[in-house]
Amino acid sequence: MSRPKPLSGYPEFTPDQRIVEQSVLDRLRETFELHGFGSVETRSVEPIDRLAKGGEIDKEVYAVRRLSAPPEAKADLGLHFDLTVPFARYVLEYAHTLQFPFRRYQIQKVWRGERPQEGRYREFTQADIDIVDTGELAAHHDVEVALVTLAALERLHDDLGLPPVLMRVSDRRLAQGFYRGLDIEDPTDVLRIVDKLDKIGPDAVRDLLTGEAGLSAAQADSCLRLAQINTADESFADRVAELGVKHDQLELGVERLAEVVRTASRYVPGRLVADLKIARGLDYYTGTVYETELVGYPNLGSISSGGRYESLASDGRTSYPGVGLSIGVTRLLVPLLAEGKITASRSVPTVILVAVDNEESRDTAIAVAERLRRRGISTEVAPKADKFGKQIRHADRRGIPYVWFGGLEGGEVKDVRTGDQGPADPDSWRPAEEELRPTVSRS
Amino acid sequence: MSRPKPLSGYPEFTPDQRIVEQSVLDRLRETFELHGFGSVETRSVEPIDRLAKGGEIDKEVYAVRRLSAPPEAKADLGLHFDLTVPFARYVLEYAHTLQFPFRRYQIQKVWRGERPQEGRYREFTQADIDIVDTGELAAHHDVEVALVTLAALERLHDDLGLPPVLMRVSDRRLAQGFYRGLDIEDPTDVLRIVDKLDKIGPDAVRDLLTGEAGLSAAQADSCLRLAQINTADESFADRVAELGVKHDQLELGVERLAEVVRTASRYVPGRLVADLKIARGLDYYTGTVYETELVGYPNLGSISSGGRYESLASDGRTSYPGVGLSIGVTRLLVPLLAEGKITASRSVPTVILVAVDNEESRDTAIAVAERLRRRGISTEVAPKADKFGKQIRHADRRGIPYVWFGGLEGGEVKDVRTGDQGPADPDSWRPAEEELRPTVSRS
Repeated sequence: MSRPKPLSGYPEFTPDQRIVEQSVLDRLRETFELHGFGSVETRSVEPIDRLAKGGEIDKEVYAVRRLSAPPEAKADLGLHFDLTVPFARYVLEYAHTLQFPFRRYQIQKVWRGERPQEGRYREFTQADIDIVDTGELAAHHDVEVALVTLAALERLHDDLGLPPVLMRVSDRRLAQGFYRGLDIEDPTDVLRIVDKLDKIGPDAVRDLLTGEAGLSAAQADSCLRLAQINTADESFADRVAELGVKHDQLELGVERLAEVVRTASRYVPGRLVADLKIARGLDYYTGTVYETELVGYPNLGSISSGGRYESLASDGRTSYPGVGLSIGVTRLLVPLLAEGKITASRSVPTVILVAVDNEESRDTAIAVAERLRRRGISTEVAPKADKFGKQIRHADRRGIPYVWFGGLEGGEVKDVRTGDQGPADPDSWRPAEEELRPTVSRS
Repeated sequence: MSRPKPLSGYPEFTPDQRIVEQSVLDRLRETFELHGFGSVETRSVEPIDRLAKGGEIDKEVYAVRRLSAPPEAKADLGLHFDLTVPFARYVLEYAHTLQFPFRRYQIQKVWRGERPQEGRYREFTQADIDIVDTGELAAHHDVEVALVTLAALERLHDDLGLPPVLMRVSDRRLAQGFYRGLDIEDPTDVLRIVDKLDKIGPDAVRDLLTGEAGLSAAQADSCLRLAQINTADESFADRVAELGVKHDQLELGVERLAEVVRTASRYVPGRLVADLKIARGLDYYTGTVYETELVGYPNLGSISSGGRYESLASDGRTSYPGVGLSIGVTRLLVPLLAEGKITASRSVPTVILVAVDNEESRDTAIAVAERLRRRGISTEVAPKADKFGKQIRHADRRGIPYVWFGGLEGGEVKDVRTGDQGPADPDSWRPAEEELRPTVSRS
């Protein structure tokens, strides 16, 4: 078999890159759990009729069927393309065993049959948090999920050297109320066009609004002026007021968004702005909407998006409103890893290699290794009895910082990096705390 | 939408069961890393021609294709049905960047279109370790992977209360050499029949050997006597010698198996036996083979199996021999969780709920929570300002052990279980160390 070629759209990591990914996932999990979110994993497949609802995403769904199924058999299961659809199903299926408001995080792979391009993959990992309640969901959760997501992303910045982020937040009720206040009949259509502002620019948006959407020049102008408002504090509310439009939904939206910005500026200053052009395109959000930019990577698209659903799920009797955010882990990591911007200090978990003098002394080496492992020190026994120089090179090539020579008594430890060597006891020798695990940093 | 029904063969866990699963996966990961195994994740799909090789497994492969693909388009990708096939491909693809011998663990979902039954799932999680080298792989790694796997399973027993295990080991060279020494022409056929010993019993095996396989009564009898040998120490070698058969491969197999049993008895006494009926059916192992029984669950089948491949992968020039074991995490956990044998101490990560007096004081509650989280204490703020009794019930229903009343100064903490309440400082209050995270135990 010749060397296999990578599959386009299915990124894979080398062992050292995987250490970076694990460090990221560990910190996301820790942050989510610190805020009282519990883990849920759902199966990878859902019934096709739950995945394909006649929307844009349908053509991207991957159907699965047994290779041995007769060709005329219809596939009835597909791979999930996000974690929201399966979570909504999970909430309905397990509602009788869950406590509401229910807070969950979910870190899993999702699949989309997209044309692979920068920032778009066919298989990728998402990390979602959502809070879902029955009947009504309190407004303060809209602030909370943003704070938790920003706390998670801030940890990646502080601990691992990932770039900082900027979260842009708006509220669909604000824009929709504003459009209604302007006597625009179809606010959804306007929302969809305004969402293209960054891609096609204000002039093209104005043309679409007056052309396709049938707005008057004055209406289009007001919509554009609203979309161009963005502030790091609550002052966006004054700027909206200056436009002189009145509507109940607009006021509610302004009030809710102001609360998000006010609280966020206290806990994560500089990381969240009100940006009234944010609409989240065709997604069915009904209130707060979030997008997040990785600073310095404007072409990457949003690395964390989400919003509030008035009805995440419903069984006819009970409605389950939810609010949540999804971090695109693969989208975030692939460019940083490809550029070599973030690297691991070594490619293996091992701290110390126990050298083997000759094959007869392998048992002694295993005994030394067991003593070290008992105290949480990741240890490998040299695979081959060899000259000491070769064993040091074995360690060096993997970035293993220490080599143990000798047995349980009279042993010595060499620091591969400095060449220093000194006597060591397998029951008390310890590396520096920060050497216990590979570290990840900006390079 | 009415309440969705579970999909047969796709097990899902409730949040408290998921905590058990996470505890298991965390300990597997820790043990593997402690022994110098690094993590690899491969994409979920492989080219169909790499998955379907004309073997038994072919009909179980799930093919994936875009829902919008034309009906006549052939699926060219399938979901992996184990972690060995993708790992072999990964080794070839990344060989130029890997250091050999390469030690990796891999914890991922796999998919098989099996008829669902006890211990068989269509989607399930496996945790594999393998050591792979170029050209030749040293024999001591056969002992090593067994020890690491047993260390991992022993931790699940010690820390989480899972049942103990018994690993049964044999060596294909031993049985095949024995058969050849008996002048049997097709040892593979005999191996396949003997593998059924536990299922159909010795008489039926004898019938198949003399019938289907065309063995003489004396040959069949010798094969059966070999298969019935199992010992917890090296004495199996004497029992084999008593059968009076000579062959080079037999001697090599006996020697290798003796080394495995001898070393294992020193590090994991009572957990590993030589059992000469173990053959691993149709899998293409060429040396040591392993199966593992969960004590008390004989009908569950093997919860950890593996073996040595003389050629895990090959690119024509270089051959990559490997040895490894796979733990069936889902197979192990589903029955224990279904029986309620292993449970989590609470259904959420949260240690303490900060009560909210009235909505005006929510900001203060958030500030208290932030102080607690800064010191690694998982904290939730009450979702609703409510009577204190209701807030305590909110905590109690989720198993959250503590509730915080009051602000940053003059705060008090109530232990929900005992009712004890006393003054507390958000910068110094700590729960007991073992309360920081949900614990998992036998119930």
